[in-house]
Amino acid sequence: MGRWAPGGRGRLEVAALELYATRGYEQTTVADIAERAGLTERTYFRHFADKREVLFSGSPRLQQLVVDAVLAQPVPTPPLDAVVAGLDAAAEVFDGQRDWSVRRSAVIGANPVLAEREQQKLATLAGALATALEERGVVAAGARLAADLGVVVFATGFARWVGDGEDRPLAVVQREVLAELRAVAAG
Amino acid sequence: MGRWAPGGRGRLEVAALELYATRGYEQTTVADIAERAGLTERTYFRHFADKREVLFSGSPRLQQLVVDAVLAQPVPTPPLDAVVAGLDAAAEVFDGQRDWSVRRSAVIGANPVLAEREQQKLATLAGALATALEERGVVAAGARLAADLGVVVFATGFARWVGDGEDRPLAVVQREVLAELRAVAAG
Repeated sequence: MGRWAPGGRGRLEVAALELYATRGYEQTTVADIAERAGLTERTYFRHFADKREVLFSGSPRLQQLVVDAVLAQPVPTPPLDAVVAGLDAAAEVFDGQRDWSVRRSAVIGANPVLAEREQQKLATLAGALATALEERGVVAAGARLAADLGVVVFATGFARWVGDGEDRPLAVVQREVLAELRAVAAG
Repeated sequence: MGRWAPGGRGRLEVAALELYATRGYEQTTVADIAERAGLTERTYFRHFADKREVLFSGSPRLQQLVVDAVLAQPVPTPPLDAVVAGLDAAAEVFDGQRDWSVRRSAVIGANPVLAEREQQKLATLAGALATALEERGVVAAGARLAADLGVVVFATGFARWVGDGEDRPLAVVQREVLAELRAVAAG
């Protein structure tokens, strides 16, 4: 997920992505990132727990945005539709930082340890979505499945949206994926 | 996924799971595992790349089993049905090592670094399933979605199957999940 913060935190994020993209993730140290951002290593670790987290800084806020939007859906909305409506809320944020998202995806795709962290963030998002649906009265099993399908829609839509030649808003791509997912599920 | 090998490799797997379950994953060293199995650390690293892999030894063979079964489905089988038929083939193996699977799941669920590796193995399985479907003539986008939904069926079914009081075969539980997933997708 994306980046949010201005100031020192934002400078560290920009510096990290540039170094990971040009020099490589393994070849970059936290000291390199801090130096490029004009900050100290100590400041880095005040903001981020490790070398990976700098690319996942926006995850909690984006997750909260999605969850809030799910909870705000009219009660009779079917679970998967509520989830995708929640994802639409995050999509607008991503549309505003498209170049960043494209470069970030390339870096993550090239580094298994970053991809592993991304998978973990998606699993956390699925858990939060399932909890939100349960708060709306969806039974646990159905909530979990709708959450997992929602994450498939998000991950698939996002991967297409950062692809070459794609210039539609993320929400439009996600809706396209949702329609395809429904067709595949129906067989 | 499960374990397969007899002999030294199998002894290391049994020793690792017992130590991870009783002493804890973080508190166990490779030397501890080797000692309990009556082998050397060097032998451990001939079989497994790191401290986590010992619990994921069966993954490649199980994945191949699933992929082969997918490729063996009659051509007109819809993609998601072909994938779940493939998962049925692996289900029989798991049914034969239920106690092991239950204990292994508990250990993985209690340790984020193991859960992260499990997510990675599932992502690898999804990639292999998508490739298999493309070999069957399914277009890439649909193949990827059917593969991802298949992995949701597997992961969800497996989590239920290792649950308290569940004694049905894994394939039966997977089919139950597939039916629920279809209902959730349809809205």
